[in-house]
Amino acid sequence: MKYDDTNVFAKILRGELPAHKVYEDETAIAFMDLMPQGTGHTLVVPKAASRNLLDADPAVFGPLMGVVQKIARAAKEAFVADGVTVIQFNEPAAGQTVFHLHVHVLPRFEGVPLKPHTGQMEEPEVLAEHAEKLRAALAAA
Amino acid sequence: MKYDDTNVFAKILRGELPAHKVYEDETAIAFMDLMPQGTGHTLVVPKAASRNLLDADPAVFGPLMGVVQKIARAAKEAFVADGVTVIQFNEPAAGQTVFHLHVHVLPRFEGVPLKPHTGQMEEPEVLAEHAEKLRAALAAA
Repeated sequence: MKYDDTNVFAKILRGELPAHKVYEDETAIAFMDLMPQGTGHTLVVPKAASRNLLDADPAVFGPLMGVVQKIARAAKEAFVADGVTVIQFNEPAAGQTVFHLHVHVLPRFEGVPLKPHTGQMEEPEVLAEHAEKLRAALAAA
Repeated sequence: MKYDDTNVFAKILRGELPAHKVYEDETAIAFMDLMPQGTGHTLVVPKAASRNLLDADPAVFGPLMGVVQKIARAAKEAFVADGVTVIQFNEPAAGQTVFHLHVHVLPRFEGVPLKPHTGQMEEPEVLAEHAEKLRAALAAA
């Protein structure tokens, strides 16, 4: 399947849709998931276009996972999390719903299961507050 | 927490424990998970020592995810999968049970949910057969 640049992450990358952004560099951006599976659920999205990991240019992976590490460390700090789950879905059978490569960074807390992937829309104020906490932790890192 | 080199993946890397290996290069190895969450569940393990993604040298990520991509593509082919889920756990609260950085590559099939992470031990013959299929797909890639 070919990459389709009308997906919502491509629109966020082009500035056509808003996002609770927490990080940006020349290779990737990170922002809060609108339907978080848990507190602090963040997405890391490379600027390079690919449908998912299967068709990605391998040159993307180093910088992308470097940003994932930054976000994972900052999220653990910001949300006083006990661990971090990193998930990346390829194709609908795997749970992929937006067809631009992205990595889920999920702060985890002892005894708290993840909510389903297509759960409820979070309140914008909550997302804004979580983004602010994460940006503060990134700035302090 | 410090890295402890008595973990089972360090033992597999040193050749002290067997594994159904499917791939090896100078940076990483890949082998079948002994308690698969689904058909073809494979682990990609960097040779460099770190507890998980949080304490890893970022230089590891590019080569590691390059291998993950190779395995994901080959697994989709070998097991005629509809998609691939990639998961990486950091710390026990996230589901991590072996404390050497590793990435789960999970072939996915329409309508088939993943089995729990600490499920049942698979029969060695099944793992050997799956490893063979995966090696054949890698060789043909």
